[in-house]
Amino acid sequence: MTVKEILSALRDEMKKRNLSAYIIPSDDYHGSEYVGSFFKARAYVSGFTGSAGTLVVLKNEAALWTDGRYFLQAARQLEGGSIELMKSGEPGVPTLEDYLRNKLEENALVGFDARTITAAFGSRLTEALSDKSIRFSVDAALVGCIWADRPPLSAAPIWASDAAFMGESRREKLELVRKAMEEKKADILLLTALDEIAWLTNLRGNDVAYTPVFLSFMLITAEKAELYAMEAAFSSDIRCSLQEDGFTLRPYNCFTVAVQAAGQGKRVWADKAKTNYSILKALAGASSLLEQASPVELLKAIKNKEEQEGLLQAHIRDGAAFTHFMFWIKQQAGKEAISELSAADTLLAFRRQQPGFMDESFAPIIGYGPHGAIIHYSATEESSCSILPEGLLLCDTGGQYDCGTTDITRTLVLGPITDEARKCFTLVLKGHLNLGSARFKKGCYGASLDFAARQPLWEAGMDYNHGTGHGVGFMLSVHEGPQRIHYGACQGNPAKLEPGMVISNEPGLYLEGKFGIRHENLVLVVEDIQNEYGSFLKFKPLTMVPCDKDGLDLNLLSPEDKTRLNEYHKAVYRSISFDFEGEELAWLQQATAPIE
Amino acid sequence: MTVKEILSALRDEMKKRNLSAYIIPSDDYHGSEYVGSFFKARAYVSGFTGSAGTLVVLKNEAALWTDGRYFLQAARQLEGGSIELMKSGEPGVPTLEDYLRNKLEENALVGFDARTITAAFGSRLTEALSDKSIRFSVDAALVGCIWADRPPLSAAPIWASDAAFMGESRREKLELVRKAMEEKKADILLLTALDEIAWLTNLRGNDVAYTPVFLSFMLITAEKAELYAMEAAFSSDIRCSLQEDGFTLRPYNCFTVAVQAAGQGKRVWADKAKTNYSILKALAGASSLLEQASPVELLKAIKNKEEQEGLLQAHIRDGAAFTHFMFWIKQQAGKEAISELSAADTLLAFRRQQPGFMDESFAPIIGYGPHGAIIHYSATEESSCSILPEGLLLCDTGGQYDCGTTDITRTLVLGPITDEARKCFTLVLKGHLNLGSARFKKGCYGASLDFAARQPLWEAGMDYNHGTGHGVGFMLSVHEGPQRIHYGACQGNPAKLEPGMVISNEPGLYLEGKFGIRHENLVLVVEDIQNEYGSFLKFKPLTMVPCDKDGLDLNLLSPEDKTRLNEYHKAVYRSISFDFEGEELAWLQQATAPIE
Repeated sequence: MTVKEILSALRDEMKKRNLSAYIIPSDDYHGSEYVGSFFKARAYVSGFTGSAGTLVVLKNEAALWTDGRYFLQAARQLEGGSIELMKSGEPGVPTLEDYLRNKLEENALVGFDARTITAAFGSRLTEALSDKSIRFSVDAALVGCIWADRPPLSAAPIWASDAAFMGESRREKLELVRKAMEEKKADILLLTALDEIAWLTNLRGNDVAYTPVFLSFMLITAEKAELYAMEAAFSSDIRCSLQEDGFTLRPYNCFTVAVQAAGQGKRVWADKAKTNYSILKALAGASSLLEQASPVELLKAIKNKEEQEGLLQAHIRDGAAFTHFMFWIKQQAGKEAISELSAADTLLAFRRQQPGFMDESFAPIIGYGPHGAIIHYSATEESSCSILPEGLLLCDTGGQYDCGTTDITRTLVLGPITDEARKCFTLVLKGHLNLGSARFKKGCYGASLDFAARQPLWEAGMDYNHGTGHGVGFMLSVHEGPQRIHYGACQGNPAKLEPGMVISNEPGLYLEGKFGIRHENLVLVVEDIQNEYGSFLKFKPLTMVPCDKDGLDLNLLSPEDKTRLNEYHKAVYRSISFDFEGEELAWLQQATAPIE
Repeated sequence: MTVKEILSALRDEMKKRNLSAYIIPSDDYHGSEYVGSFFKARAYVSGFTGSAGTLVVLKNEAALWTDGRYFLQAARQLEGGSIELMKSGEPGVPTLEDYLRNKLEENALVGFDARTITAAFGSRLTEALSDKSIRFSVDAALVGCIWADRPPLSAAPIWASDAAFMGESRREKLELVRKAMEEKKADILLLTALDEIAWLTNLRGNDVAYTPVFLSFMLITAEKAELYAMEAAFSSDIRCSLQEDGFTLRPYNCFTVAVQAAGQGKRVWADKAKTNYSILKALAGASSLLEQASPVELLKAIKNKEEQEGLLQAHIRDGAAFTHFMFWIKQQAGKEAISELSAADTLLAFRRQQPGFMDESFAPIIGYGPHGAIIHYSATEESSCSILPEGLLLCDTGGQYDCGTTDITRTLVLGPITDEARKCFTLVLKGHLNLGSARFKKGCYGASLDFAARQPLWEAGMDYNHGTGHGVGFMLSVHEGPQRIHYGACQGNPAKLEPGMVISNEPGLYLEGKFGIRHENLVLVVEDIQNEYGSFLKFKPLTMVPCDKDGLDLNLLSPEDKTRLNEYHKAVYRSISFDFEGEELAWLQQATAPIE
């Protein structure tokens, strides 16, 4: 069906239910960063395939909100249709709430599928429209009625991750969680984020792209730990093992009903930012709600000794793979036909040669020249351009290994570059080195350290419009909280940096129409000295790939910058040279040789 | 009476009321930083005169909690008596709440004067003891019954501050406040912090040391603005002027009763961190409470054009005064007898010579040698030592002028110093210069910038155990919020730095038994460039006093550090040289001459 036909069918369904508006968000039932194909309802109805966007369909018009990453793509994909593009945050663009308030009559009925929006958004939306006595039909799953060939809910086989890498058994983890529940006097804890459940159960799946998780919910009390999941996905071995460890398997679609029954008169802990609105509604009978982040968020963020060791391994393998790619593309650009897409394929092939490689950890961002300036650019058949022996190539990619998750950005110099590009490349690197080598007091937040990365750019009157660091899971999501490095990350209850956390160090700079630069390492927070002034922490680099020295303006580097870079390159050579030989090894020696 | 006799009299009063414990905090009814002599009940009963401390008297024992600033002084002042010193935060020292929970029987009755504790502390205390069914007598003002020669409540004459410096009339300010109330749908706003009321009314008083405020409360609705204050303190001119502007004067001691009546069924805005517990109890009949900071806090923090101009003036005068003192003490140390106390007197005399000087803005901290390492040191007749022509003298002082409040710290080199002192002096200055010259994005918090000041020390494995920056009032308190520079200031709802805010830049370093170093300027947040990367802010220095170059290790300064210091010194010379002549002018030229 065309978008026009789909909208018409949807409006028929709205009419049957007397709905004046229908909202279709991008989320699955778990607020996942990537969603399975069953959940791509918004893309199906609107034709816009970006990862973030919310569609609102009224009787005679429709509008789609998306953010800056997708303005171009959404404009192209909506072109010629009847859906208006709403560029979120741009001047004069109404919020979704304001739009509805203006367009709807008093008492109008608004529908959505409450499983696909977070509790926080649902509460905000219903509150925002309360003054017009708008009513809500929160269980309206209309897309299911019109999407004839909708893919089924995924139920890919679930596998137990290697116990040697996990460090803690699910039984031990469950104990930690119950201890946290006791401290907060919570009778029931609900886990709804897929990575939290995968962490707790030491199980992995394949229901979502790039992240080895499986569709599931959990309900935990002092006595029981119920895992609601697609039962067909579990082998009998895993079922038995779960049972032995005190976990009970229940059908995925029974969760909300179970929550409603179990929650009566109880104190329930459910993260309002992650739990879907339908679950929140099911908790109406609870005696009290604890709406903060689940204890798993912080437990998961602090990697144990075995996870840390696995991560070091994963980064050596991934570093070798990326460095092979770096050698290859710096040699071959101009000699053979390479496009952004084919470069991504080649990089994937290098990764596949490494032991324990399972998948990419996110859609590769390989942006050549001006494409590098588009944050979150992902080449398509249409956009993919030829890579020539000149200018800058921004590569932000990562892998899932059987011993950890990686995420690395390098900006590669393929030939001559402008003085401007050289200056920008060097300033970004100064910030990257300054943050990476920072010693800081225990008690620092990510917000307390961003200055280290941004100062060289701010001094030059420049900046980048994204965070400097995000947490990374262990064989889990490439983006996780609670830690974050951004100067503005002081609201809500931000988390202090703690030993064992993994975080990215990725300052950048983007000159529209010219080039983009980003240098990204993953780093591990570790203990540093302890003395009469207190306890200090520092970052240990995980990523082991040369920074492309061909982009440097040596005049802009201080002696300290040079020492920092040389020390890092020494560590890189030590870590990955075993995987190189001949001409390639000679190049690696050169690429990691000290600068003066 | 001796402390022993006072405690005995207090216990008689406790017995009459069947109290098992009585708590005496340090606060006045307004949570003021400095309190009038009427309010010094804790000092009267315990003999400990420090500014912070809470006394708990049981039937047969007593204990006093104070913080690190006062451990030595409290130990000395409590010595030989029956009051146990509780060093807050030290290992093994119970909190006041835990102490009471352990010592008291179930159902015991605990008394205090609820006007002298904040609502936040009162709520925490009663909550913490709820599991032992402890009961509370919150209106037990026992000290009044035993303190025969208690000074009366102050009612010093109130004066209207010069309208030319205020920039906004009280009528305009009231309008801004009412607009904020409307936005938050508050029926009633209570102001209880003395500086907030002085700001709103453009009135000043003299009821509290160092801060020109007057005892008062305010109750504001859409129709009325009631000022509860000591009526005798108001001239008839000021009464008339207040009335014309829509303010009604009411007796100070009628506030709580008025709040109780007015609050019934209303939505009341009262800052839980500043309002006293007695007022919170009086609000039991309110339909809802908005417990966040009053709108005055932020309005007051952002100085208007006239206030900014006044502050520049005040800092030129204060800078000249301090620099005269600096010349004098650097010349005279060793030539005449100078003690810490007499140095403070001389500095005050220099300040008194400046037009518009009214008072010091806090108790001067003049700490010579090892005394400099005691944060919040204030010389007493007993501790004041001789100042010799060697080592470091830490001077943290400030003034109240008719055009603004100042706060400056300089560490002066009086003769030979050790290499260690020189290194520390220079590292602290590097941080001070780096923060002072930072360009930063709009949207930064104080926590986002602390790294600039601390990095040189952290790199060397050192640190200082206090904030780097606090707000400063305009002819008001030398410490005000909401802005603050500290790497850990990410909890609660911290305020972004905004143009017009005044904040201190005061990194330090303290080597116990050796010396203390602190370099403090007040700076004004101002707009910097605006371009495709966004809006940037920077700091404009207000304080105009040379940094003592005699303390520098030039080898530790980068070319950038030197440029920054030279530029600052150029501005200092331009600002204050008009007040110098002859030998002193020649010295000033030298003291502000560029380093290479």
